[in-house]
Amino acid sequence: MKTKLELTLRTLLKGAGQVMFQGSEWTGLLFLCGIFWGAMESGRDIVAWGALVGLSVSTWAGYLLHEPHAEGRAGLWGFNGILVGCAFPTFLGNSPLMWLALVLAAAATTWVRTGFNHVMAPWKVNSLTFPFVFLSWLFLLATRMLDGLPAEYLSAPELTMHFSTAVGTSLLDLLVYWLRGISQVFLVNSWVTGLFFLLALLVSNRWAALWAAIGSAVGVLVALLYQAPGSDIANGLYGFSPVLTGIALGCTFYRPGLRSALWALAGVVMTCFVQAAMDTWFLPWGLPTFTVPFCLTTWLFLLPLYKFDAFKADHSHWHKKDGPCT
Amino acid sequence: MKTKLELTLRTLLKGAGQVMFQGSEWTGLLFLCGIFWGAMESGRDIVAWGALVGLSVSTWAGYLLHEPHAEGRAGLWGFNGILVGCAFPTFLGNSPLMWLALVLAAAATTWVRTGFNHVMAPWKVNSLTFPFVFLSWLFLLATRMLDGLPAEYLSAPELTMHFSTAVGTSLLDLLVYWLRGISQVFLVNSWVTGLFFLLALLVSNRWAALWAAIGSAVGVLVALLYQAPGSDIANGLYGFSPVLTGIALGCTFYRPGLRSALWALAGVVMTCFVQAAMDTWFLPWGLPTFTVPFCLTTWLFLLPLYKFDAFKADHSHWHKKDGPCT
Amino acid sequence: MKTKLELTLRTLLKGAGQVMFQGSEWTGLLFLCGIFWGAMESGRDIVAWGALVGLSVSTWAGYLLHEPHAEGRAGLWGFNGILVGCAFPTFLGNSPLMWLALVLAAAATTWVRTGFNHVMAPWKVNSLTFPFVFLSWLFLLATRMLDGLPAEYLSAPELTMHFSTAVGTSLLDLLVYWLRGISQVFLVNSWVTGLFFLLALLVSNRWAALWAAIGSAVGVLVALLYQAPGSDIANGLYGFSPVLTGIALGCTFYRPGLRSALWALAGVVMTCFVQAAMDTWFLPWGLPTFTVPFCLTTWLFLLPLYKFDAFKADHSHWHKKDGPCT
Repeated sequence: MKTKLELTLRTLLKGAGQVMFQGSEWTGLLFLCGIFWGAMESGRDIVAWGALVGLSVSTWAGYLLHEPHAEGRAGLWGFNGILVGCAFPTFLGNSPLMWLALVLAAAATTWVRTGFNHVMAPWKVNSLTFPFVFLSWLFLLATRMLDGLPAEYLSAPELTMHFSTAVGTSLLDLLVYWLRGISQVFLVNSWVTGLFFLLALLVSNRWAALWAAIGSAVGVLVALLYQAPGSDIANGLYGFSPVLTGIALGCTFYRPGLRSALWALAGVVMTCFVQAAMDTWFLPWGLPTFTVPFCLTTWLFLLPLYKFDAFKADHSHWHKKDGPCT
Repeated sequence: MKTKLELTLRTLLKGAGQVMFQGSEWTGLLFLCGIFWGAMESGRDIVAWGALVGLSVSTWAGYLLHEPHAEGRAGLWGFNGILVGCAFPTFLGNSPLMWLALVLAAAATTWVRTGFNHVMAPWKVNSLTFPFVFLSWLFLLATRMLDGLPAEYLSAPELTMHFSTAVGTSLLDLLVYWLRGISQVFLVNSWVTGLFFLLALLVSNRWAALWAAIGSAVGVLVALLYQAPGSDIANGLYGFSPVLTGIALGCTFYRPGLRSALWALAGVVMTCFVQAAMDTWFLPWGLPTFTVPFCLTTWLFLLPLYKFDAFKADHSHWHKKDGPCT
Repeated sequence: MKTKLELTLRTLLKGAGQVMFQGSEWTGLLFLCGIFWGAMESGRDIVAWGALVGLSVSTWAGYLLHEPHAEGRAGLWGFNGILVGCAFPTFLGNSPLMWLALVLAAAATTWVRTGFNHVMAPWKVNSLTFPFVFLSWLFLLATRMLDGLPAEYLSAPELTMHFSTAVGTSLLDLLVYWLRGISQVFLVNSWVTGLFFLLALLVSNRWAALWAAIGSAVGVLVALLYQAPGSDIANGLYGFSPVLTGIALGCTFYRPGLRSALWALAGVVMTCFVQAAMDTWFLPWGLPTFTVPFCLTTWLFLLPLYKFDAFKADHSHWHKKDGPCT
């Protein structure tokens, strides 16, 4: 017999899992373990607590706003909220006003997601993690004008960034960057967390684990080939978006297959250039790109609606069908 | 018997009124009185004349382009034009080339509005005052590259703004900021004009007056709580967009009711953060946000298409039905 | 009997021609001659080779991705690719990594165009040259973060541009600026190339040649009237987008006629202001606008869906009918 508590718990855990497209409680649980490990390792436990609060608030908003329960049970209410919950304490100082803003933004992800999905429904694409990205940008931009919400850990606005491409490239180094790239999906910088996340994906879907691995590896390689900032490569910042693009194109919106694999690989490579482009774009505000390189590239690769014959996967809960235009 | 002149006059006055969603001649007349008062008080009468020219030109464009007359009679041709007419002389120096640009931009609001409404029709939202915002940004950006159109009253482009949060908070001070917030809807900085505008709303719709009052008050309070720049608060710059969001969500696109009131209140609060965010975003060009915080927030709160049961208002002339997709 | 080689060659040449909306092999051939002339005149032959590579790669991508062959035969696979091929060597240093990026971006124009056209189909507008613009911005932004892709010929990022409005205005000067404005459609700065392009248009469609001539002339005049940077006027940078807007509105999406001519003229004038605005907008990244002033203005003038009675042209291959929403 499923109690209400159990249902809610499953909804929450799946919400964490859906950040990487996995509607699995175990994946969600292992993601949370990885987040807590990374937060504690870096001495900023607050990030993990933020994740829990963001996840809970956005899920609770789904109930309150009478969003379709099937979506909630699939974990689609929580994945933007948990990311907002990771992002706010990562960049903002700890204060009651920060938590108030976090609650507002996390709740908003739920209805903003519904709105964005309505907008995108005619083209059979989904807003992905863009509600999180959009609201986080909004509040981080606002901090520059609001002394009550100090952006303690945000870069200074600048027109040009001077960077060094120097970076260790021993096999061990590369292994660490590769795992950090996977951990950065949740804004965590820890190779141990990367292992947690890989394990979490393996539990749910081996293809997802494979594409996460490929995504982060290709991200590091393209960034090295084109000589991106060394510290960005080392901290996994060229990995997290390709990880998500890989999972999205390689085994979520397309069925695994030769042609979809080539398509996903092209998407993963393109994501690295979009990452560099967006990093440049946001310099004048000192703003992080979050996962927008993943969103943008995945849209660019889904919008042509290529079918690749039998390889088109059916992910009906990701393709909202009730858009006003369909 | 309605003469043609009377019809045109009514069309013009309603055009002024629709800036705050009121298709009422008396509201429009009182708005114009408020604008003239504010313009003369600040010694810049030219702003009021600009308003009249912008209103007339955009309305005339509606006739010329054979736009549906029902829209014109409801005042929907004029509200973007009058705002362009307020904005241009507020930021640009007085010269024949400025007036030429004003005429072009005001006329363009009419067909740009039709185009934007087509784009947004599938999602049952309206372009609101965005045609005004869009064209004003375009021409203010252009002034930086056109010596013939000097931006005399525009801020200098910068990456970071240093500001003081110091601001008087006596009850009288707050009263003045609150009224200025209402007057700034038409880019006027005068508490007397704010009174004119409140009266103008009362004449047409008490709920609109109430939500204007709530919007500006909440704007000031949130800005004080989160410590926004003191001069912005004092000049009513955290008030005008929440005023419009309040009227839009509280009694225009939803019927007044408990749940729609809570929704509108959430929208009003969110508008303050969007205001701070957009202020930051436009620093590198020294550009004002105009009413985009209102537009953006209202879209975010309308796009989920929540019905709130019986509270969904029918504003058919605001929901264009002839979009190519519906 | 049409051999496969002949078919491919025709497809390629029409692809060049479609940059100015002409599905004509001869126009395409003369365009290529003009590009080679301009590239050699300025001692940067590499630009012409880039054009050939971009054209070929994007066309080849159309075959590979099984895009509808009717579109390919009309030249719609190549026009974005050839522009990417002109842009990359114009702004980036010559290196294998540059060519790799060029190939990736040129290929991407083909599916990005399909995606963008899907997005725009409900409103009966087309993505025009925006796929080229979008991908070129992306890669030029990325160069700032990628030492392996140095932006040798790109302006430095800055907040304000100091410029002189001084510019020669003898009749001969104006004639040269006017022709350069036409040549800049392909990023070439040469009055001889402008003559090539005018001739190329005459071969296919006299109205197109006329509107190219009008567009560039009006561009120069408005820029002089409003005192744009003198060097921009002299180099034809206020001409190329109005040229395209003129051809698009004057004789491509509307049939030539009195009312469509006035509409096109208004569009051409508006394009100049959009050019100045976009030049300002991209200062903080030192990015060129490419043809976005043309795209944006043409959309603004097409979206109202004005029919001008009998003057609506039927360009079915430009209005994709298979969008998911129509």
